[in-house]
Amino acid sequence: MITIAIDLMGSDLGYEELSKSVIQYLNEEKDRRVILFGDQEKIKPLFASIDSSRYEIVHCEDVIPMEIKPLDFLRSKKASLYKAIDAVRNGKADAILTAGSTGGFVTGCSMLLKNIEGVTRSGLCTPFPTAKEGKGTVILDVGASNVNQSEDIYGFARMGRIYCQNVLDMENPSTFVLSNGTEEGKGTDEIIGAYKLLKDNNFPNFQGNAEARNVLDGNHDLIVTGGFCGNIFLKATEGMASIMNGLIKQSFKRSLLTKIGYLFSHKGFDKMKEIMDYRRFGGAILLGVNGVAIKAHGNSNTYAFYMAIKVADQMVKSDIVNKIKKEFEHQDEKQAD
Amino acid sequence: MITIAIDLMGSDLGYEELSKSVIQYLNEEKDRRVILFGDQEKIKPLFASIDSSRYEIVHCEDVIPMEIKPLDFLRSKKASLYKAIDAVRNGKADAILTAGSTGGFVTGCSMLLKNIEGVTRSGLCTPFPTAKEGKGTVILDVGASNVNQSEDIYGFARMGRIYCQNVLDMENPSTFVLSNGTEEGKGTDEIIGAYKLLKDNNFPNFQGNAEARNVLDGNHDLIVTGGFCGNIFLKATEGMASIMNGLIKQSFKRSLLTKIGYLFSHKGFDKMKEIMDYRRFGGAILLGVNGVAIKAHGNSNTYAFYMAIKVADQMVKSDIVNKIKKEFEHQDEKQAD
Repeated sequence: MITIAIDLMGSDLGYEELSKSVIQYLNEEKDRRVILFGDQEKIKPLFASIDSSRYEIVHCEDVIPMEIKPLDFLRSKKASLYKAIDAVRNGKADAILTAGSTGGFVTGCSMLLKNIEGVTRSGLCTPFPTAKEGKGTVILDVGASNVNQSEDIYGFARMGRIYCQNVLDMENPSTFVLSNGTEEGKGTDEIIGAYKLLKDNNFPNFQGNAEARNVLDGNHDLIVTGGFCGNIFLKATEGMASIMNGLIKQSFKRSLLTKIGYLFSHKGFDKMKEIMDYRRFGGAILLGVNGVAIKAHGNSNTYAFYMAIKVADQMVKSDIVNKIKKEFEHQDEKQAD
Repeated sequence: MITIAIDLMGSDLGYEELSKSVIQYLNEEKDRRVILFGDQEKIKPLFASIDSSRYEIVHCEDVIPMEIKPLDFLRSKKASLYKAIDAVRNGKADAILTAGSTGGFVTGCSMLLKNIEGVTRSGLCTPFPTAKEGKGTVILDVGASNVNQSEDIYGFARMGRIYCQNVLDMENPSTFVLSNGTEEGKGTDEIIGAYKLLKDNNFPNFQGNAEARNVLDGNHDLIVTGGFCGNIFLKATEGMASIMNGLIKQSFKRSLLTKIGYLFSHKGFDKMKEIMDYRRFGGAILLGVNGVAIKAHGNSNTYAFYMAIKVADQMVKSDIVNKIKKEFEHQDEKQAD
C-alpha cells in the first residue's frame, strides 16, 4: 500500500484548502494511506468523513520558515516538514509532499534522505506549460543548487529522462541543454562540458543546445541547466507571464468598448488561462534523493495540491527512485570497466 | 559635429528600411554627419535627397556572419561591420551602429576599440519595457561575456548608472543585483561578491538583490548580472512574451463571438503592444569600450533603427565614454590611496 507523508503547514492557503485535496485523493484511490503533519486540533475535524485506518496525524507545532540554514534545519526536529521528510527516511512513508518553504524542502530532503549513490547533485525539476495546448516541457535544475559541474547537468538529463518517461508518458523525450546559443561550444564551461558528456555518451534523443526564447515553444521535452540559471529562467518566465496577464486585464478595462469586447471574447481568454496554468503539473520534484519528494506551490489551491498528490502517487507507483538508482549503478559499472 | 558610422549590412530588413531611418535623422538634426557602410550601388540612390556633405559611403561587399570567431573577425577587414567599428577607432566617427551580427559586434568592438582603462569587462546593456507604461528597466550584461567575476558585475553597475542618468534621464537609478533570492548571501559566488562590493562601496541607491520575477514590475531601474544569466533572462522574457502574444491572437480567433470581441477591444490591445514594444529603446549598447557602440535588433524596422540612431546621438552628445573613463580613473586613484 502506498503511503504519502503530507506536510499541511507552511502553505499560503492553509489546512482547509489542502485537506480537501487529500480527501479527494483518498476517496478516489481506495488502497492508499496518508500521514498528515500539522496541528492535530485543526486537522482532525476536517477528516471526520474518512476511515481512521486511512490516515494518521502526527501533531506538529513548528513550521519551517521560508529561509533556513542547513544547521538550523537539522535543529528543527519538531517542525512538520522535518517530521514529514523523516517519515520517508525511516520507511513509514513512500513520498513526502509539502507546500511550505522550498529552501527547507531542498535542504531537508538532501540532508535526511541523502543523494542516491552515484548522483552528484539532486535537481529540482518543474514541468512548464508551453505554447502547445497540453504539451509540457520539463526543466531542471530550477534551483536546488547554485553551482553545478558538467557532471551534475549530465546527471539531470539522466534523471529527467526517467521522470519524463514515467510521469509524463513521454516515450523518448527530446533533450536539450539550456545555453545562450544553439551551436556546440556556446555557453559557460559547465554547459559546454554537459553538452560534450551528453554527446559522447550518445544520450538518447539528445538534440543539442536550446535558447531560452525557444524552450517553451512546445517542441522541447526536457531541458537541463545549472540551478542558478534555471531559477532565473523559471522566475523570468513567471514574471513576464504575470505582467502580460496584468496588461490583458488593463486592455479590457480601457474603455466601455473594450469592456464590451471582453464580454464577447472572455471564453477565448479562459482557454488561454487554462493552457498556461502551471498548477495542473503539481509543482516541483526533487530528483536524485532516496525518496519521492514533491514541493507544491506555496499558493496551491485544492486543484493544484491534488495534482501534486497525484504526481507523488504516480512517482511511487512507477518506482522512479529505484529506476534512478539502477541508472546510476549501471553508469558506475560502465565506468569501472 | 557628431558623425555616426552606420553599418547598413547584416540586417534582416535590408538597405531601404534602415536608410529611411538615417534620412529622417539627417533631416531632423542639421549638424550631423553619417558614414554609411555597405553596397555603394544600393545606398547611393536611396540618399539622392540628402546633401552630399552630410554623408559618406564606404563601399563594402563582405558581411560579418551571425557567428564568428575572434580571429576570423580580425581577418574580415573588408566587411562592413569591421570597417564601421574601425571608423570609430581611428577617430573618423563618434559612434558605431549596426543591425548585424551581435557576436561580431561584441567581438569587433572589444578587439578594435578595446576596453576603457580600469574596465575589467564591457557589458551589453538593454533597456526592457516594464509593466508600468513608459518606464524602462536597464539590464546588463545580457551576453557580452559568458563568465563574470564580482568585479565585472560591480563595474556593470557603475557603467549602467552613467547610462541611466545620461540617456534615460534617471536621476538616481535604483540598482539591484539579479539573483535567486532577495536576501544578502543568495546566489553564486560572483553574485554574492558583487552584492558585497556594491554595499561596501556605498554604491548610490543600491537596493540589494532582485528576483527575476520582479525585475520588470516597473520598480527597478538598473539590474546587473553576469552575461550568461543575463542572456537567459533576456531570451526567457522575450520567449514568454511571444508565446503570450500568440495565445492572445488564438484567444480572439477561437469563435465568432471572440472575433466580435476583438473588434470592440483591439484598441486596448494596441496600447498593450505599444507598452511592450522594446523597439522604442533602440537596441543594445556595449558599455565599457572606447567608443559609443550600439547594436540594433536584427529585425529593426525604420522606427526601431531611428530610435537606435537617436540613442547613439544622445550617448555621443552626453559624452558617456569620457564619463565612464572618469569614473574608472577615479576608482583607480581610490584604490592607489
